[in-house]
Amino acid sequence: MEIQRVTVIGGGLIGASWAALFLAHGLSVTVQDIDKAAEARVLAQLAAAWPDLQALGLARTTLEAAQAALRVTPDMQAALQGVQFVQECGPDRLPVKREIIAGIEAHVTANVIIASSSSALMASEMQQGAAHPGRILVGHPFNPPHLVPLVELVPGRHTEAETVTTARAFYEGLGREIVVPLRESRGHVANRLTAALYREAVHLVAEGIATVEDVDRAVSAGPGLRWALMGPHLTYHMGGGEGGLRHYLEHLGPAQERRWADLGTPRLDAATVDALVSGLDAALARMDETTLARRRDAALVALVLARRDQGFGA
Amino acid sequence: MEIQRVTVIGGGLIGASWAALFLAHGLSVTVQDIDKAAEARVLAQLAAAWPDLQALGLARTTLEAAQAALRVTPDMQAALQGVQFVQECGPDRLPVKREIIAGIEAHVTANVIIASSSSALMASEMQQGAAHPGRILVGHPFNPPHLVPLVELVPGRHTEAETVTTARAFYEGLGREIVVPLRESRGHVANRLTAALYREAVHLVAEGIATVEDVDRAVSAGPGLRWALMGPHLTYHMGGGEGGLRHYLEHLGPAQERRWADLGTPRLDAATVDALVSGLDAALARMDETTLARRRDAALVALVLARRDQGFGA
Repeated sequence: MEIQRVTVIGGGLIGASWAALFLAHGLSVTVQDIDKAAEARVLAQLAAAWPDLQALGLARTTLEAAQAALRVTPDMQAALQGVQFVQECGPDRLPVKREIIAGIEAHVTANVIIASSSSALMASEMQQGAAHPGRILVGHPFNPPHLVPLVELVPGRHTEAETVTTARAFYEGLGREIVVPLRESRGHVANRLTAALYREAVHLVAEGIATVEDVDRAVSAGPGLRWALMGPHLTYHMGGGEGGLRHYLEHLGPAQERRWADLGTPRLDAATVDALVSGLDAALARMDETTLARRRDAALVALVLARRDQGFGA
Repeated sequence: MEIQRVTVIGGGLIGASWAALFLAHGLSVTVQDIDKAAEARVLAQLAAAWPDLQALGLARTTLEAAQAALRVTPDMQAALQGVQFVQECGPDRLPVKREIIAGIEAHVTANVIIASSSSALMASEMQQGAAHPGRILVGHPFNPPHLVPLVELVPGRHTEAETVTTARAFYEGLGREIVVPLRESRGHVANRLTAALYREAVHLVAEGIATVEDVDRAVSAGPGLRWALMGPHLTYHMGGGEGGLRHYLEHLGPAQERRWADLGTPRLDAATVDALVSGLDAALARMDETTLARRRDAALVALVLARRDQGFGA
């Protein structure tokens, strides 16, 4: 079954970015959102995203056709009429999620996949009480979803294998790069890694080892450049010379363990929050914040194209 | 004093990459290395690096002129004749470093800066027993130094302020992006952040949450792309919407702390090393490893240009 009709629940930043990606692919998209301003917002975000989608080769249709293929409605039943795939982007709190899923299930047939964009919740938690838990899974993107290719596809305890297969094929068809964890874990995979990096980033500021600006620069001018191409495992393999990762681990493993033992365990107490915010303010004073999101997106397009050109990623 | 004559101690991968960067800038460079094969190796690395240095706008001379401005010698005294700046790239063990520094100091005047590429040692440790500790500091690059702009400039207890000022101006003139930590710390800044990310990357594999390949993909197709442009602090600020970082921390700080509490503390024992190596082998089987370093460098050039174009970094 070729998926051609998608419903996005929630027309916020993430939902609108998903919608733009789906629409660019020529799909019929309905965004369900109770906010009256949602339609204008989704249309504006679609128009803004369009040149980037074109540059990435992800626009298979015209902006006019994409606009015509979009519906925005507050009505759940109308939004789900004839849908084949639901991308759920509601608030990341379990009782709310369960309510939303019950609302979706009331209006769709049993074979319609419900993929949740949740970063904090697990599919198994959302499956509790569901009528058809086998079609529920997490499809977690990174912001902005139409530019950053990663989707973490995380089945829950009751997710059917076919659900994963279908969802994977669907997202891969949209040029996404898919990670399927072997089991569920709070934060899935990428946000656990992000949290680990952030903990030490906070520690370095809280302990007065470096400024917020220098911590950020130490990432983006250094290892961050490599992380856009390859993850930590392959990076250490390449740092191991002829002997690769095994050589690295057998020779520098003990040094790595000592480094781990020296990492910090900060708290986000009021004093630390103040230090982080004032440090960030100092950094912001030296950049043009008004154009930051636009420049980030333009650079992300160039990065995605560069890594694809060199055989890294889809 | 304009620095025009530089000596690189150690003609390995890092030393040769530094030499290529210095030579591209039109400097006279002597590489000191006791290995007879060093000269051929440094020349080969220079030629290989040249197109990338040109693409980055870092080549202010011709390859022929750069080759002519290079000397490679095993002799310490000859290598240091008339030098103004020493980039030390010897083995990262304290007794060896101290010996090398004593060897350098025997042949240079007191105002010559000695910058160590050390990632594991601190300048204060290397200053012990030095004749002129005020001119010693860490100038730690990321591999490969001629492509990755970051230099961590870390003064030790006895480093004179003028040493930092002069070294900063020197590196900035070479298009480097400088981080100066407020105080010394094992691993400086970037390698502490790298270690923090790697610890969770190992944990995810050791606990069977995800494969090596998926952990790496979860970085490079996701947050890694953003980290090539901005560090974790600015990233969370942008994720905080209108309220920015303070809003993020005040609303999601407790969730972040819970995520930190759930992070792993793996050991690099034999079983874990085996799991990491076999997982990496599976990933390598799906890529062209013979061209990996070349493709990485080509992509790094494109990334550095893209972030520069959009006002991120030098």
